[in-house]
Amino acid sequence: MNLLDIYKELKSDIQFIEDELSHSLDTSQAVLQESSVHLLHAGGKRIRPVFVLLGGKNGEYNLERLKHVAVALELIHMATLVHDDVIDHADTRRGQLTVKAKWDNRVAMYAGDYILAKSIEIICKLKDARIHHILAKSINEVCLGEIEQIRSLYNWDQNHRTYFLRIKRKTALLMAVCCQLGGLACDVSEKQSKALYYFGYYVGMAFQITDDILDFTGTEKQLGKPAGSDLLQGNITLPVLEAFKQGDTRQLVIKEMEQPKPDMPYVIKLIKKSGGIDQAKQVAQKYLAKARQALEALENSRSKEMFLKITQFIEKRDF
Amino acid sequence: MNLLDIYKELKSDIQFIEDELSHSLDTSQAVLQESSVHLLHAGGKRIRPVFVLLGGKNGEYNLERLKHVAVALELIHMATLVHDDVIDHADTRRGQLTVKAKWDNRVAMYAGDYILAKSIEIICKLKDARIHHILAKSINEVCLGEIEQIRSLYNWDQNHRTYFLRIKRKTALLMAVCCQLGGLACDVSEKQSKALYYFGYYVGMAFQITDDILDFTGTEKQLGKPAGSDLLQGNITLPVLEAFKQGDTRQLVIKEMEQPKPDMPYVIKLIKKSGGIDQAKQVAQKYLAKARQALEALENSRSKEMFLKITQFIEKRDF
Repeated sequence: MNLLDIYKELKSDIQFIEDELSHSLDTSQAVLQESSVHLLHAGGKRIRPVFVLLGGKNGEYNLERLKHVAVALELIHMATLVHDDVIDHADTRRGQLTVKAKWDNRVAMYAGDYILAKSIEIICKLKDARIHHILAKSINEVCLGEIEQIRSLYNWDQNHRTYFLRIKRKTALLMAVCCQLGGLACDVSEKQSKALYYFGYYVGMAFQITDDILDFTGTEKQLGKPAGSDLLQGNITLPVLEAFKQGDTRQLVIKEMEQPKPDMPYVIKLIKKSGGIDQAKQVAQKYLAKARQALEALENSRSKEMFLKITQFIEKRDF
Repeated sequence: MNLLDIYKELKSDIQFIEDELSHSLDTSQAVLQESSVHLLHAGGKRIRPVFVLLGGKNGEYNLERLKHVAVALELIHMATLVHDDVIDHADTRRGQLTVKAKWDNRVAMYAGDYILAKSIEIICKLKDARIHHILAKSINEVCLGEIEQIRSLYNWDQNHRTYFLRIKRKTALLMAVCCQLGGLACDVSEKQSKALYYFGYYVGMAFQITDDILDFTGTEKQLGKPAGSDLLQGNITLPVLEAFKQGDTRQLVIKEMEQPKPDMPYVIKLIKKSGGIDQAKQVAQKYLAKARQALEALENSRSKEMFLKITQFIEKRDF
């Protein structure tokens, strides 16, 4: 199943959002535009804008209002990617040179800041203080999540709670807010707003856990980077935490990771053998089940169907 | 004259803002709090919060509303300082180790992001979409200014226009917005709002030009860093641009700056001899005159007096 099939119905609205996204980064500052547009063209699933649109379908669907929400939230996501790359020292993202690799770190940092500032300017086009507030808080949380991630790098003693809080902030909250703000921009009820928020949150958790699994199980071609990159860079994710529960996996993995050039295929094998991947998949499943449960409160059947298809897509993802 | 004398009347209100500023950065994330509070304690003139309060005196003075504006704007300023330090590779600011020197660059970057996000969360406590919008745009402009500054580093061919646009974005706009938003948070008229904006803008231009002059004329003890640091790091400011108009100053300065270890005292002497400092002082004076003119439209005499004293302080600054 391809996400694009789910999107087909929303295709022209998504294209409209894409155009708005491009225009939002129009600036006479050449370097800034290059670095931003560079990211835009590197593609991406645009799952967040889709969540915004589907959220809107639960109210008085209004693309003129939804576009501000969709663009603002996608810009926040892009800003974190740009800053992430400064932190991760990544050379490629989605198979293209990162902003960081292409230009000075310093430009990347301010490009990220600019994109973030743009997102706020855009959300202000909706004269809705509540929406501004929710967006502001979500940016806060994303920043905290990123800082927590830096602090947790190479920390072999971290626990599950640390991990879940981190991915909640880094990923799930923004998805929750996409669904919720899409709804609020279209005047949904409090009950719908809450259901949308929780759907997005649970799906976001499942989505990130799946991403973290795929970092071990995917190929370099699929991932756009070598398998095990997260772990190599010190980012300890759920498959590893689950693997560590089993036998002497923990000692063996840490021992190998402390080598100057860890043998990643060997480490990945250890994690798979210990059941770390399978256990993590089960956790993702639990979140997907919660997401589907949250959907029951939604009244708009068409968006409910599409949200449901998205959960099935996440379940079946292998790249 | 000491800024604190001007502030005396506002002393308890400023202290209230200081406390709010500290509380705004309370977070259970230890590293984040350390890096933010570290900046707070490094002091600073708090001229922006003062501008906000004085702006407010031109309307229905309301400290509960003004605090949000003052804290938000000071946080934006702090965020740019944190990011500036990542860019400037500065080891000290105000005589203390910078966030960057103390911790990893990466934490500094996200600390700056977090502080920025906090400022937005705080301005959202004022349910005023127009205020949010003005704040959002000013963040944009500050980011553009910072990027322009990076791009202009070591560019000996840049012109006055580039410089003025840069400092407008980097410094003057934020000061303009401090005055203006202080007024708007207290329901000033459109005319007062405009006068406040232009006062802040002209004073901000004078303030930055004066800062740029002091970077050449101050001592290391006064500046907290060696004189001529701006130029050494490639930041070409008004005294230099003015100096370049005179005789062979340009060739001599560039020749020396291209040495592995430029003789900064010699370069500073060249700039002084060519009249670069004097010319720049005259430009600052012109901006101060415009600022005083803008004050004439203000109706509140007490704030007018204090704003006027601030222009006199800037005029007489020697550190």
